[in-house]
Amino acid sequence: LFLSYAQVIFSLDTLGTIAFAISGALAAMQKKLDLFGVFVIAFVTSIGGGTLRDLLIGNQPVAWLTSTFTFSLITCCVVVTVLGRKLLVRARQQLFLFDAVGLGVFTIIGIDIALAHNLPYPSSVMMGLFSAVFGGVLRDTLCNEVPLIFREELYATPCVVGGLIYVAAHGLGISGITPLLATVFCVVLIRILALYFHLRLPTINLE
Amino acid sequence: LFLSYAQVIFSLDTLGTIAFAISGALAAMQKKLDLFGVFVIAFVTSIGGGTLRDLLIGNQPVAWLTSTFTFSLITCCVVVTVLGRKLLVRARQQLFLFDAVGLGVFTIIGIDIALAHNLPYPSSVMMGLFSAVFGGVLRDTLCNEVPLIFREELYATPCVVGGLIYVAAHGLGISGITPLLATVFCVVLIRILALYFHLRLPTINLE
Amino acid sequence: LFLSYAQVIFSLDTLGTIAFAISGALAAMQKKLDLFGVFVIAFVTSIGGGTLRDLLIGNQPVAWLTSTFTFSLITCCVVVTVLGRKLLVRARQQLFLFDAVGLGVFTIIGIDIALAHNLPYPSSVMMGLFSAVFGGVLRDTLCNEVPLIFREELYATPCVVGGLIYVAAHGLGISGITPLLATVFCVVLIRILALYFHLRLPTINLE
Repeated sequence: LFLSYAQVIFSLDTLGTIAFAISGALAAMQKKLDLFGVFVIAFVTSIGGGTLRDLLIGNQPVAWLTSTFTFSLITCCVVVTVLGRKLLVRARQQLFLFDAVGLGVFTIIGIDIALAHNLPYPSSVMMGLFSAVFGGVLRDTLCNEVPLIFREELYATPCVVGGLIYVAAHGLGISGITPLLATVFCVVLIRILALYFHLRLPTINLE
Repeated sequence: LFLSYAQVIFSLDTLGTIAFAISGALAAMQKKLDLFGVFVIAFVTSIGGGTLRDLLIGNQPVAWLTSTFTFSLITCCVVVTVLGRKLLVRARQQLFLFDAVGLGVFTIIGIDIALAHNLPYPSSVMMGLFSAVFGGVLRDTLCNEVPLIFREELYATPCVVGGLIYVAAHGLGISGITPLLATVFCVVLIRILALYFHLRLPTINLE
Repeated sequence: LFLSYAQVIFSLDTLGTIAFAISGALAAMQKKLDLFGVFVIAFVTSIGGGTLRDLLIGNQPVAWLTSTFTFSLITCCVVVTVLGRKLLVRARQQLFLFDAVGLGVFTIIGIDIALAHNLPYPSSVMMGLFSAVFGGVLRDTLCNEVPLIFREELYATPCVVGGLIYVAAHGLGISGITPLLATVFCVVLIRILALYFHLRLPTINLE
């Protein structure tokens, strides 16, 4: 590859933002919200995870406020999603893959920022998890649904497993593109296996 | 007028706080919450928008924590609303106007603070919007209703339009009372027109 | 007692964290969430109040991110709660006491941190209240229940009364273990009396 590490992270971040903006816009249209609601849900789904992470770590003003890039990108995604909605609804499976890549990418970005603030490994994995899933939790809460994270087949687990891999590589001093690709690959793989085989974590019987 | 710009802002801020505290207290009484619940909802409605804005920008401790003014003001509003509830329920239309002024004022205050932190214009308009509407979103969520912002006739749009006017004036170098009054007037006007003519943003059909 | 003030605070903080982690884990199991969901709810219930307090005051990175202690402690609590769930469900009354002590302790810790940031007394009492009850509000919201704080007999009142006692002692220059014990005792006592005599704050009739 001819891209630097920073360029790879930036490209993946952009990809994740797009994936989540589209998934948010589609969810809002399914709930028959008006155009403003569609934009809000797309926006919140895209930036929710990163915002929570930045607030907890103390990284303020939060990233998307300081430039117009994220704002413009999400606006474009909403316009494209609204115009191309029939195509996108049919492309469910490709979108699922897209979304899984987004999960993996946001996990990595969350961990990178946490490590840059000298947080310990467990906290860093948790910041990766929060970055990846909190946008979706907000989307589901605002759309008045039980958050996907509490009902779907292994939504958070891939982020935790991927995060552990990434943090292990960091601890072993392995850097560069390899741990990044391994993490994203692992997240996508677990998501696919979980959906295909209907894997679930066990629930506990109180009686 | 014989007031300085800071005094006008302070007066309008006070007016907005009162308007939202009353609307929160009335909503909580309608839900038959106890006295504590009425106070909490009034408080959250009043300070929710500004708190979210201050957190995202990194303006901490958030404004209402550092003095007892906001706290005392909201306490007074709750007492007055509880005692004068019959009068206030009959004065729905006047309250609606009051609330619309609050929306306009909080939009301006949010934008002013964002611009003081050198945020770009789109982010500043968004901070104005958040300041204006997030208190109401919290009120509706805590009262277990679908947020007004997602169901009522143009609740967020006037703040966005007003915010664009205010930011345009700032960009053109126009300062002082004029853009302030133009913004509030515009917000109130759109709110009234929207309610009177049942204006709505279009929803998008997924099929 | 042979413990220093800091050691007493640390011990009580640990006690409160354990109490809330267990109450969160039990609530999540009752909702039949999977193991991950049980952990998330236990975690959020434990650290929710302190996190909101730290965000509002600007105490970042929030406390539980900077070490692995809280994380490990809550993980242990979840494991113990899952394994010992039959015992814990039968020990409801002891858990209630435990939870009441947690409320009192977190009230004190919230006020201590607020005073250390030179916040005025009313804001400090409010930070004590938020620290104590917000974890429970998040737990109930995520479990899709009307927050306990809005429906149960005097859940917030003991924290406010206890907070006023603690702040009064501070204002009179009384420090050390005495105001601390008085506050916790008072919170626990009001909780017990409220539950035993079904005390409630009055609701207001809108008609």
